[in-house]
Amino acid sequence: MKKNAIVAQSGGPTPVINASLQGVIEGCLSYSEHIGNIYASWHGIEGVLLEELIDISSQPREEIELLRYTPAAGAIGTCRYKLKEEKQVEDFERIIEVFRAHNIGYFFYIGGNDSMDTAYKVSELAREKGLELVVTGVPKTIDNDVGDPEFKIIDHTPGYGSAARYWAYLIQNVNEENRGMSVSEPVAVLQAMGRKSGFITAASRLADPDRQIPLQLYMAETDHNLETLAENVNRELKRSGRCIVVVNEGFDVGALGEAHDGFGNIEYGASKTTAAQVVVNYLNEVGLKARGQATGQVPGVIQRSTSAYASRVDIDEAYQVGKKAVEIAIEEGTGWMATILRKPGSSYQVYFDKAPLEKVANSVRYLPDHWITEDGLDVTDDFIRYAQPLIGEGWPEIRIEKGLQRFARFNIEFIEKKLPAYIPVKFR
Amino acid sequence: MKKNAIVAQSGGPTPVINASLQGVIEGCLSYSEHIGNIYASWHGIEGVLLEELIDISSQPREEIELLRYTPAAGAIGTCRYKLKEEKQVEDFERIIEVFRAHNIGYFFYIGGNDSMDTAYKVSELAREKGLELVVTGVPKTIDNDVGDPEFKIIDHTPGYGSAARYWAYLIQNVNEENRGMSVSEPVAVLQAMGRKSGFITAASRLADPDRQIPLQLYMAETDHNLETLAENVNRELKRSGRCIVVVNEGFDVGALGEAHDGFGNIEYGASKTTAAQVVVNYLNEVGLKARGQATGQVPGVIQRSTSAYASRVDIDEAYQVGKKAVEIAIEEGTGWMATILRKPGSSYQVYFDKAPLEKVANSVRYLPDHWITEDGLDVTDDFIRYAQPLIGEGWPEIRIEKGLQRFARFNIEFIEKKLPAYIPVKFR
Repeated sequence: MKKNAIVAQSGGPTPVINASLQGVIEGCLSYSEHIGNIYASWHGIEGVLLEELIDISSQPREEIELLRYTPAAGAIGTCRYKLKEEKQVEDFERIIEVFRAHNIGYFFYIGGNDSMDTAYKVSELAREKGLELVVTGVPKTIDNDVGDPEFKIIDHTPGYGSAARYWAYLIQNVNEENRGMSVSEPVAVLQAMGRKSGFITAASRLADPDRQIPLQLYMAETDHNLETLAENVNRELKRSGRCIVVVNEGFDVGALGEAHDGFGNIEYGASKTTAAQVVVNYLNEVGLKARGQATGQVPGVIQRSTSAYASRVDIDEAYQVGKKAVEIAIEEGTGWMATILRKPGSSYQVYFDKAPLEKVANSVRYLPDHWITEDGLDVTDDFIRYAQPLIGEGWPEIRIEKGLQRFARFNIEFIEKKLPAYIPVKFR
Repeated sequence: MKKNAIVAQSGGPTPVINASLQGVIEGCLSYSEHIGNIYASWHGIEGVLLEELIDISSQPREEIELLRYTPAAGAIGTCRYKLKEEKQVEDFERIIEVFRAHNIGYFFYIGGNDSMDTAYKVSELAREKGLELVVTGVPKTIDNDVGDPEFKIIDHTPGYGSAARYWAYLIQNVNEENRGMSVSEPVAVLQAMGRKSGFITAASRLADPDRQIPLQLYMAETDHNLETLAENVNRELKRSGRCIVVVNEGFDVGALGEAHDGFGNIEYGASKTTAAQVVVNYLNEVGLKARGQATGQVPGVIQRSTSAYASRVDIDEAYQVGKKAVEIAIEEGTGWMATILRKPGSSYQVYFDKAPLEKVANSVRYLPDHWITEDGLDVTDDFIRYAQPLIGEGWPEIRIEKGLQRFARFNIEFIEKKLPAYIPVKFR
């Protein structure tokens, strides 16, 4: 008997998370002998708990195709609802109950490491409860921090290539700005996302692989502080009269009033001040030994939601990995996450594979030491060789209507509920 | 006898300031019977004072053509050196001296209202000193705050259309983000540039002329404060569960530690905190009556230096107005700024005209009252009709080489100096 599928997104979005969604949907459609209805859960796992399910099969085909160039998670929503605590046993049981009620046999979870942990636990619990359920993960994070230090589980996560392209192009633009304004605003400080790892900050170097731009990168993995930053900046000002500084959002984190997200991680966007502001204040008050002022730029969520900088390579891989997840679900059963691995050789080529959810769950990957230069201000050529192919060539083909971007828009109408109302543990 | 020309840029850049530079250069080339060498002053008027002049005639033709899609002012530099005070008489005299030494008969100054004041004074002083000099202004500012309240001096300034396009597309992207993340980050706060006027903030509305997005605009011309903002946001959260807030950089300015630029204006990018941060802190600490957190985004200089969002209409007009300035210089003599005016009728068409520098100097234009809705949170359809044509259709044709943007790069080599070294008054 055919079973239905649920697909859900989790955590912060990427410019290509919907390409993975499209891959999952089209993958499911191609296995119509196994998979019946395809539902999307509205706002990630919260939608499962609240039984808020959208029938994807009835959405216009055109909207599904538009997912490819629709950034962030406005199509089906995402959330940061954490499902780890022992005290959330009720939530886990509710999930199983909802799956049972809607004859769900396949659950595709698009997310980062926290989400793969949830996916693993749901998969285990279903087994315990005797529910025939295949849970398959689809990797997603701009941070590129999912996986192992040897890049054997996954070469890179979908989303990272687009965040990297955003930063490469941004630094090119800011270089024009900084070069032009250097006599009055010699230092441009920019803050890049990346909770624990410096992959996004590092991608700024892709703007300038030949190192012509006075660019300093303060990655999460290095131990610079305000004083060493000011020293480095002043040295560069003496040499070239200007400096572009990219700081990881957690730079000198002691000074930030921290906020936390639903996963218990620091939520830098909601903090009382920003790393960029702390640096700007320090430089302008005590640190700057040159005429002019430092200015701060905090793109915040813009870097993970900007359609125009989505990498074509990233879009395609995000789509493929979504499709691969369905293939894995059908062919290999529960407990896997689809992965992207790089073929050996000098030209960039990837293949899609799988890794056990358990292994990925709560994994964390940092920028390897040997990709950071000795002064802790730059990345090596090896990093450039790794990251450059990910940003691709050319612009994404965003559809324009009446001068504006035309994004996918589903009809958000929930299918009939079959269970009594439920209040998720964390909302009580 | 032929005279030489100097072109210079002044103040904060725009994504199309170089298109005006290209227009001036090509205009000068087309009047080769009047104009000899074309020099660019490196970093605005500072380059004149320091006698740092670049020979444009000897730059590769290809680089001049690339100016069209090169954002910000990295090609010839700009500055915020103020030339107003009586005590800077020496600087004014130095300018005349440099012009005399290099046989300068034409001075093209690309800038905002402050710069038109400088241009006017230089023009007057040259007349007094018996130097045959034609000074012509080329308008430039993303703020659209140059001109008169009736839009009779100038309909809009080159640069504004691109800043407007940046914000229109940005809000479209952030809407996808906010819609997707609303259950954990229901409020996205973004800070728009615009020192005294709300034209840029207002342009966010172009993302959503039909008003489908829960978007609130806090323009400089309205008198909202943190408390009324929180009330408005909470009302929207109750209605739709999410809210996108765009605040003018000077919102509730009392809370910002102010920094000042060389013109004596507040330099928000260098201030101790930002309007967005003040709003985020207020909402997260006392104001937010919903689950989740507000996050802050401060694009800063990115909004005036991003090539990808340059409006094709704006690029073309910026180029034309630069060319027009040369025509005015030759045909009408000194003391004018080239302008853009809109033809009557329902389809968008412009023509290029002129206004006296004296009239433009230090003019300031605010968003007219009748373009702001009564609740002070939105603009009217009249504003949309005014601004929508300025963002154009389609993407600019930025040249890509090796996966990166290829911008114009001049050979920065100064022509032989003819005068003793000089230290500008403000650097002493």
